Amino acid sequence: MAQKTTLKEFESVYPKLEEAILEHARSYKLPSAELDWLRSNLRANPLGGKCNRGMSVPDSVSLLVGRPLGEEEYFLAATLGWMTELLQAFFLVSDDIMDGSVTRRGSPCWFRQPGVGMIAINDAFVLESGIYLLLKKYFRSHPAYVDMVELFHETTFQTEMGQLCDLLTAPEDRVDLDNFSMEKYRFIVIYKTAYYSFYLPVALALHQLNLATPKNLAQAEAILIPLGEYFQVQDDYLDNFGLPEHTGKIGTDIKDNKCSWLVNQAIEMATPEQRRILEENYGQKSDEKEAVIKKLYSDMKIKERYKEFEEKRAAEIRSMIDDIDESEGLKKAVFEVFLDKIYKRTK
Amino acid sequence: MAQKTTLKEFESVYPKLEEAILEHARSYKLPSAELDWLRSNLRANPLGGKCNRGMSVPDSVSLLVGRPLGEEEYFLAATLGWMTELLQAFFLVSDDIMDGSVTRRGSPCWFRQPGVGMIAINDAFVLESGIYLLLKKYFRSHPAYVDMVELFHETTFQTEMGQLCDLLTAPEDRVDLDNFSMEKYRFIVIYKTAYYSFYLPVALALHQLNLATPKNLAQAEAILIPLGEYFQVQDDYLDNFGLPEHTGKIGTDIKDNKCSWLVNQAIEMATPEQRRILEENYGQKSDEKEAVIKKLYSDMKIKERYKEFEEKRAAEIRSMIDDIDESEGLKKAVFEVFLDKIYKRTK
Repeated sequence: MAQKTTLKEFESVYPKLEEAILEHARSYKLPSAELDWLRSNLRANPLGGKCNRGMSVPDSVSLLVGRPLGEEEYFLAATLGWMTELLQAFFLVSDDIMDGSVTRRGSPCWFRQPGVGMIAINDAFVLESGIYLLLKKYFRSHPAYVDMVELFHETTFQTEMGQLCDLLTAPEDRVDLDNFSMEKYRFIVIYKTAYYSFYLPVALALHQLNLATPKNLAQAEAILIPLGEYFQVQDDYLDNFGLPEHTGKIGTDIKDNKCSWLVNQAIEMATPEQRRILEENYGQKSDEKEAVIKKLYSDMKIKERYKEFEEKRAAEIRSMIDDIDESEGLKKAVFEVFLDKIYKRTK
Repeated sequence: MAQKTTLKEFESVYPKLEEAILEHARSYKLPSAELDWLRSNLRANPLGGKCNRGMSVPDSVSLLVGRPLGEEEYFLAATLGWMTELLQAFFLVSDDIMDGSVTRRGSPCWFRQPGVGMIAINDAFVLESGIYLLLKKYFRSHPAYVDMVELFHETTFQTEMGQLCDLLTAPEDRVDLDNFSMEKYRFIVIYKTAYYSFYLPVALALHQLNLATPKNLAQAEAILIPLGEYFQVQDDYLDNFGLPEHTGKIGTDIKDNKCSWLVNQAIEMATPEQRRILEENYGQKSDEKEAVIKKLYSDMKIKERYKEFEEKRAAEIRSMIDDIDESEGLKKAVFEVFLDKIYKRTK
């Protein structure tokens, strides 16, 4: 019944949105060099990713209505999807500066590109502003306009709190495992990732269709937050245990002192001797020390612990999906699609 | 009739607003170290300034109603005022990083404080988020709620476009006077400063009182943007010609390669020989070269040119104020107060 969007179809909407933002800047009589810069920012940063978050808006809308979308319907759903991509671009550009990252999607990070530097901070702000400019242009008369604006505000603040916790918990330059705990880990994962990546697109789809009743939103949140947490745990698992042939990258979480699910599990179970090994080897830029940690994870059967977690969490989510009350227009299929994409993924 | 607020009175409102933001973070179960950080951010950055922008909201509201404000009325006006201060704090924290500034309000810039560094970028975002959180908490049921939210979005984007133009026009590390022009200067001043500093507070005051008719907003903008431009020109003038005993600081615009009103005037009038002197001496960290520019400004009678500009601009604004149509509740007094504070100021 429903029809999954393709990256090509989704990307075909973007030029119109880029033009809307440029047009607004033109109405200020922004000088031409600055207009060119704005265009580069709007091309370099929101584009080039897999757009999983963005595409999940039209996919969810289509599943909710149970048929392929008409042209205007698709345009609006994809526009909401692009707003989640703009939000992500705003976070990624700035996170890369805060983390001192080197590459993003195979190219140098935006702030490392020639002539950009700290101007990237203002560029990140501009990506965020794009969201509200598009919302106003395309949804000003939509009954859920205010709710959508507030949803973006709330999701932004949630993500900022998650990022704050991440920055304070795992500074790359000072290793202190006392900072880590499963409680902090869960906070970071839920607030920094799950809300904007999983809850936001579905909530937007519900709003577009005027199906965002308190009950539907609460049911979506109750499933998508544990699902988002599961997704990030899996990401941490794949960083260490994934096959580079599948994931396309070599994990660096151990060397980078990341507050990963794996190290938090190890901390929870460690004997005093194992704790000592963790303290002495985690979070350092040394192949030997990294190998010691990998050996420890193996000895502590962290992989098996992950497998148990995955089965248990997937079963819980499946059970919650089964229990969904569809009476206000929510559909189980929306969540089944998410779970199917995630369960036992290898990349 | 009206009563001017004091810094003490205005600041007395802030703890309640700080607490509202902290309370929202607590509802996420933000861990305690992060909550402490958030509190420090909310104290270090919006507080400690003169609060001219923020206080102009309750002052304008009081002038519009023509009497001192009641307790609840004052609280709401001051809350809107604090939102303009949060917006400014968001810009200042991030501008200081982009400009590599050293001090702000007599202390090291936030990003230079121990342990802060690039976390300041996320802190800047959080200050911005505070605006919308407070708007939702205190104005959700106000008839102008959506207009106020959109006003903040628009003003933010305007300021970002001004900042972009400033960053691209006057990079501190590359002097190129061909980049400068009075046209760019005006764009930067109007978008980076005038909208958020002058138009925003008055527009908010009008919204609070449900007096923000299209006609009133247009009249306010028509006066406050040229007034804001005048204010910034004066700032540039005082950087070079002001008395340190009055301004409390020693100007550095020449050495910092600032796209100042003074240098743009000099560029407009320069003979080829004077242009050569500008090219060879502007924007360099040398006392001798700075002195050459100061001498050139004196030879070119830039001070006198400023005086002419000031008289002409003040007369134009006075005339626009005289012509204000008060039939929809706008009051001339609002603008007279702004002009009186600015005309011939020495600090």
